[in-house]
Amino acid sequence: MFKDFKLVAGRPVYIQVKDYLKNLIVKGALQDNQKLPSTRELATLLKVSRNSVISAYAGLEDDGFAYTVQGQGSYAVSTSPGSEAASSWNIDWKSRMNGHARLAEELDIMKRGIRAEKGTISFTSIAPDESLFDLDNVKRAFLDRMSVEGNILLNYGYAKGYKPLIEYLQQYMEHKGVNMKGKDILITNGFTEGFNLVLSALSRKNGKVICENPTHQTAIKNLKLHGFGITGIPMERDGIHLGQLEKALSEDTYDCAYFVPSYHNPTGIVMSPEKRQGLMKLMNQYGVPVIEDGFNEELRYSGSHVAPLIATAGGGNSVVYLGSFSKVLFPGLRIGWILADQELIYYLESIKRAQNIHTSTLDQSILYQYLYNGNLEKYLKRARSEYKRKYELTLQCCKEYVPFTTLSGDGGLHLFVTFAQGFNVRVLLEACREQGVIFTAGDIFFTDGGGQHTMRLGFSRVSDEDIRKGIACIGRVARQLMG
Amino acid sequence: MFKDFKLVAGRPVYIQVKDYLKNLIVKGALQDNQKLPSTRELATLLKVSRNSVISAYAGLEDDGFAYTVQGQGSYAVSTSPGSEAASSWNIDWKSRMNGHARLAEELDIMKRGIRAEKGTISFTSIAPDESLFDLDNVKRAFLDRMSVEGNILLNYGYAKGYKPLIEYLQQYMEHKGVNMKGKDILITNGFTEGFNLVLSALSRKNGKVICENPTHQTAIKNLKLHGFGITGIPMERDGIHLGQLEKALSEDTYDCAYFVPSYHNPTGIVMSPEKRQGLMKLMNQYGVPVIEDGFNEELRYSGSHVAPLIATAGGGNSVVYLGSFSKVLFPGLRIGWILADQELIYYLESIKRAQNIHTSTLDQSILYQYLYNGNLEKYLKRARSEYKRKYELTLQCCKEYVPFTTLSGDGGLHLFVTFAQGFNVRVLLEACREQGVIFTAGDIFFTDGGGQHTMRLGFSRVSDEDIRKGIACIGRVARQLMG
Repeated sequence: MFKDFKLVAGRPVYIQVKDYLKNLIVKGALQDNQKLPSTRELATLLKVSRNSVISAYAGLEDDGFAYTVQGQGSYAVSTSPGSEAASSWNIDWKSRMNGHARLAEELDIMKRGIRAEKGTISFTSIAPDESLFDLDNVKRAFLDRMSVEGNILLNYGYAKGYKPLIEYLQQYMEHKGVNMKGKDILITNGFTEGFNLVLSALSRKNGKVICENPTHQTAIKNLKLHGFGITGIPMERDGIHLGQLEKALSEDTYDCAYFVPSYHNPTGIVMSPEKRQGLMKLMNQYGVPVIEDGFNEELRYSGSHVAPLIATAGGGNSVVYLGSFSKVLFPGLRIGWILADQELIYYLESIKRAQNIHTSTLDQSILYQYLYNGNLEKYLKRARSEYKRKYELTLQCCKEYVPFTTLSGDGGLHLFVTFAQGFNVRVLLEACREQGVIFTAGDIFFTDGGGQHTMRLGFSRVSDEDIRKGIACIGRVARQLMG
Repeated sequence: MFKDFKLVAGRPVYIQVKDYLKNLIVKGALQDNQKLPSTRELATLLKVSRNSVISAYAGLEDDGFAYTVQGQGSYAVSTSPGSEAASSWNIDWKSRMNGHARLAEELDIMKRGIRAEKGTISFTSIAPDESLFDLDNVKRAFLDRMSVEGNILLNYGYAKGYKPLIEYLQQYMEHKGVNMKGKDILITNGFTEGFNLVLSALSRKNGKVICENPTHQTAIKNLKLHGFGITGIPMERDGIHLGQLEKALSEDTYDCAYFVPSYHNPTGIVMSPEKRQGLMKLMNQYGVPVIEDGFNEELRYSGSHVAPLIATAGGGNSVVYLGSFSKVLFPGLRIGWILADQELIYYLESIKRAQNIHTSTLDQSILYQYLYNGNLEKYLKRARSEYKRKYELTLQCCKEYVPFTTLSGDGGLHLFVTFAQGFNVRVLLEACREQGVIFTAGDIFFTDGGGQHTMRLGFSRVSDEDIRKGIACIGRVARQLMG
């Protein structure tokens, strides 16, 4: 015994000794009431200081794995779960999974996505480029906040969110032209939780939701998981087709609508101000509340800012705005917010509390301090110019190499390519994968099983060189397939 | 105009100027295409440096709220949501809330709890005492981790959790005697999310769950929110009453069981090893899977450690263990874990991803580094002795002052007091509140509407002096009420 002890760096030695002995006790190599070696003896055997062994024995005792007899030494305490057999049995968990669990697994594209070998050029991600992150400002924000509030940040917070952050976001949204009267904010674990909270609270008239087609895959997934029927309305160059939207609204009733007006995922289209007006008039006329996805609003590269739908709604309370900095700032901090009528927020707060009590206070306070310190503006300046360059490069490469029918994307972190009807992008993807290039097949974004001839190209995390190489490859293979 | 500008400390001046102007534009005080004052002029008016104004104008332009005409100056860009009226309408959100939302609000004790004025002695909390937090080690953990992985921590992580933390917890649970073969871990936003994930995945045979009575209020709430019927089994001095448990199991079928074997909430009872064996034999016999709440296991003040139920189950996969450091370490870091059969974890991972993508990578990595650095052991040493002292003081004061019938609590952060049948604790609570002392009425922990004559005393955040004063007051008032 005691021959296989190995020290690792960084972790206190006495804890490694304690863990090692605990393991021997748990595994039964040290029996209940078995005498442990003297501290001097074990120190020699393990080649550690005697003090480390003394502390390790004390630690074992604290944890209830050893006891000392004055003048005699330490003895092991084993729990030996004992008559295991009697209580050891197996369940077929798969057979106990309900429809919700099975559907969640089935719709989990992370478990369906194609594996890419190392070195593959991947256009699948629309996550930010982490090399742009200003780590020092994040560290400063953390240390600043810690020195102001310290321990409080590590204890329980409020389901509604961290107050300073809520107040900051209220002003932030006011500056987007939102009339905040009668509205309130709930902090969530990113957009996805916000979307789920709203869906889980809404009563069903006939369980149908209307949205753009194509649209955000996570939204489609969660609408299905909540049992909603989905009616998708095709996109035009400047956003959703109002004529077809009105037709659909006049032919059926909908519990709510879901729209991504800016840098729409996946088409990258920014809905024109005029169309936003027209859209909101229609929703008003047919009395359908709107869930607005504030996705990437901040990544405007040029032109004047466009007010979100919730601003267009003025004093009305019919729009539920879901905000997040995940695509702009740090996805690792799971922070998003719901801006909506205060009565709705009042209910969502209770559901949020029941689901996970509250969002990480540490994440919220770091983000708040980071924003307060004025880092978002500095960061956006750098990020916008960097992403703008990549955006224009990707655009140019597509025009140069790819035999597309239409190409869309007004900014943001991705472009959307549509090929001729009948062209199978899944085949293209498989062929490109063999050449070390992957992207996202567009069909997963369609609400009606369409889009087999479309693809999304996320460029945020691809180097300029790889953008050129990758898209050239896609173009070459596409032409081959078109014969 | 420009008279009401006020500088605040800490935030960059140019951003404050930009925000101020943005506000004027959004509010319509500055019209579309209206010329902005020259930078020199505005600098004088706002009493800031000219450079701040120059940066502010540049920032406005970046955000699309202004444009420059060479040699002429800057002009405002207003979005003026315009024909608001047309799209401004109101929804009666309350009428659109479904049963789930209404029930969540109804069961939200945070919205039902009695308000306590400042200076009130409160025994309602069982959150840790934040003055014990070793902030410097948390800071070090953050900075250590940042220097090792940096940016990666701020980008997207994995639904399953942060790998180093998962591996640490696997060893941690092994040392509690758990056979990890065929088991896996999923990181969650605390116990509550873990519990909800499991409940949302389980298929229903007859929608009934069996548990201790009384039990954790949040568990009762979420079982109800998931539509489960609850059968509570009374407690004995050393844990759940096995005889009555067997009776219930033989008379009905249950989809699963929920148990809190250590420092049971609210009774504070630690189930004896013998009873754990007996319990697991019964669950095996009747084929009912167990959800084990590892609540406060770490707060053992004396005696040998007691293995969790999942260790008793040995190689079996019938126990789902929900762990959390929230009550021991930092609740502000929303971290918990589910240890269970790997097939179950596979499905729960997809549900987790659909609900909020993943738990904060920053929280997970800080916790991991904090644990790896060996701080938990040091912290527990201090916390245990501190809480042990308070525990013994509270116990002594109860014996000294309170006319109880039975008193339970083997450690942890709270005691449970039972008065004579018929004694109304709600009346006691109201009378004590008037004297500036509050606690938690026990009835909220009961599955059958009972417990009107019980109360929970959380002492973790009460000073020694207040513990004495507060309990003396409770005792005095109780005797008065008993006449």
